[in-house]
Amino acid sequence: MRSRRDVDVPTLVESARSGAPRAVARLISLVENADPALRDVMAALAPHTGRAWIIGLTGSPGVGKSTTTTMLVRAFRERGLRVGVLAVDPTSPFSGGALLGDRIRMGDHVLDPEVYIRSMATRGHLGGLAWATPQALRVLDGAGCDVIVVETVGVGQSEIEIAALADTTVVLLAPGMGDGVQAAKAGILEVGDVFVVNKADRDGADATVRELRHMISLGDRTEPGLWRPPVVKTMADRGEGADEALEGLDKHWARLQETGELRERRARRAAREVEAIVLARLRSRMGDLSRGSSLPEVADQVVEGTLDPYTAADRVLTELT
Amino acid sequence: MRSRRDVDVPTLVESARSGAPRAVARLISLVENADPALRDVMAALAPHTGRAWIIGLTGSPGVGKSTTTTMLVRAFRERGLRVGVLAVDPTSPFSGGALLGDRIRMGDHVLDPEVYIRSMATRGHLGGLAWATPQALRVLDGAGCDVIVVETVGVGQSEIEIAALADTTVVLLAPGMGDGVQAAKAGILEVGDVFVVNKADRDGADATVRELRHMISLGDRTEPGLWRPPVVKTMADRGEGADEALEGLDKHWARLQETGELRERRARRAAREVEAIVLARLRSRMGDLSRGSSLPEVADQVVEGTLDPYTAADRVLTELT
Repeated sequence: MRSRRDVDVPTLVESARSGAPRAVARLISLVENADPALRDVMAALAPHTGRAWIIGLTGSPGVGKSTTTTMLVRAFRERGLRVGVLAVDPTSPFSGGALLGDRIRMGDHVLDPEVYIRSMATRGHLGGLAWATPQALRVLDGAGCDVIVVETVGVGQSEIEIAALADTTVVLLAPGMGDGVQAAKAGILEVGDVFVVNKADRDGADATVRELRHMISLGDRTEPGLWRPPVVKTMADRGEGADEALEGLDKHWARLQETGELRERRARRAAREVEAIVLARLRSRMGDLSRGSSLPEVADQVVEGTLDPYTAADRVLTELT
Repeated sequence: MRSRRDVDVPTLVESARSGAPRAVARLISLVENADPALRDVMAALAPHTGRAWIIGLTGSPGVGKSTTTTMLVRAFRERGLRVGVLAVDPTSPFSGGALLGDRIRMGDHVLDPEVYIRSMATRGHLGGLAWATPQALRVLDGAGCDVIVVETVGVGQSEIEIAALADTTVVLLAPGMGDGVQAAKAGILEVGDVFVVNKADRDGADATVRELRHMISLGDRTEPGLWRPPVVKTMADRGEGADEALEGLDKHWARLQETGELRERRARRAAREVEAIVLARLRSRMGDLSRGSSLPEVADQVVEGTLDPYTAADRVLTELT
């Protein structure tokens, strides 16, 4: 086994760019492990990035994210595109294996050399989802993927974070999985560019579609010139509704390019990515501080009530900056 | 309506300390709104904090968190203690009202002047749960609560974060809500000081208890001298199992004090609280940067592929520190 220092970055990046799945997997592992070699990896990849269309796919547990992803992958493969799938699990501290079930369900594509499927656990990682995901997407992008589907379960803030990373965000729902009020609460109405109501053969599918359309019509997205998110019905396990879903996605992609919004979204995304690296580095400096500095001392004074947390923060900031 | 600048901190803090519920509520609203007056509030509260026993209560949706909290509140009230309840909703960007349902279900105690019940939304807030929750707890502590139950739904990282804030963490489960493997995945085995299997009249309750005990026995907590988390069964809606749950809590509290772990946990918590304030401040400086600095410029270069995100982060860091 090679030590971390021995990562041969130029060779690894070259292999990944030529499409070697093992090299791609290795690079994503470096991201997962926050390996120091990442700096060189990202420098080598930079000129080759920016081509991929990044599609975020989010929804509650049980709505059919894996089958929908499989359906989309199949459709993009029919167009001859190279496809990446990144399944991000923000609730698990364990890597890849935790999502093995999903990967098995995507069995159709496991052996297709033009499809990269990768699960990534981000919980407990330095900076979490916001730090690791854009870098993993950068790897898949640099490896020549035309489309990348980044799939995550919508819990906590994850769907907002995924939307911030994607060019196009698909929000997946299923009938009876929660009413419109809950949808609004979760903030999905604001983040969805395309809404897919999966399991459309279930009772209440049409009501869910109607309710979603109604709620979208109440928002500020109905102003002239603004993108109005389509709501499509699918039965992803049978591939039904794939054409309608793709049509919605394609229209959004065309719109992003026409309006210049693609560039704006990507600039915001890059700013966030840089910010996440900056924050992780500051946080790691703070970790150093907790060993050789005033942090333990001021924390003790806060416990004793002789110092308030804001004044304590002032002291730490002085040392940090 | 008074402007933010007009917050009369000494009077407000004095009222809160004398037990005026409206003053306590007002102070927690200042936390929720990240009001600049917080600095003075925390300075005024500091000498009066550190008394409350903070009990974290977490579990998946549907396990009965509100009824269990109500059961615990009743038990502590029978001891004549002043009790605070802070229901943190990390999935909602909306304040108080979002959890109105919970507060109504806690109807027993709504009119009891020795019980403060407060919901707080932390999503989208500066620093989120890690920033706001310790400060809200500090308010309740300073207002003279003997025990504070901080309740949160276990999604994403929230239960880990709540455990980091609490003296004693209660993990709530219900039969059939997920098997042991899922429990392990969610990391709850590591964070629970007391496990409560609620809805114990349901099928599978005993199996859930056995499985939990088995999994605990596999962990490293069975070493001599280490706290071995008890697993108790409750039917919180009928108050059954309250004594057993309280017994487990009391034992853990006694243990924390005997071993000196209470002081250690609180020092770690204070360090994290200070860190969250530091990070929020650095992040807000970065927000300033995005207007008057190189962040937009370097983000553009990252999009173009002429700069990698690490080198971009170097440039931003130089400006920030």
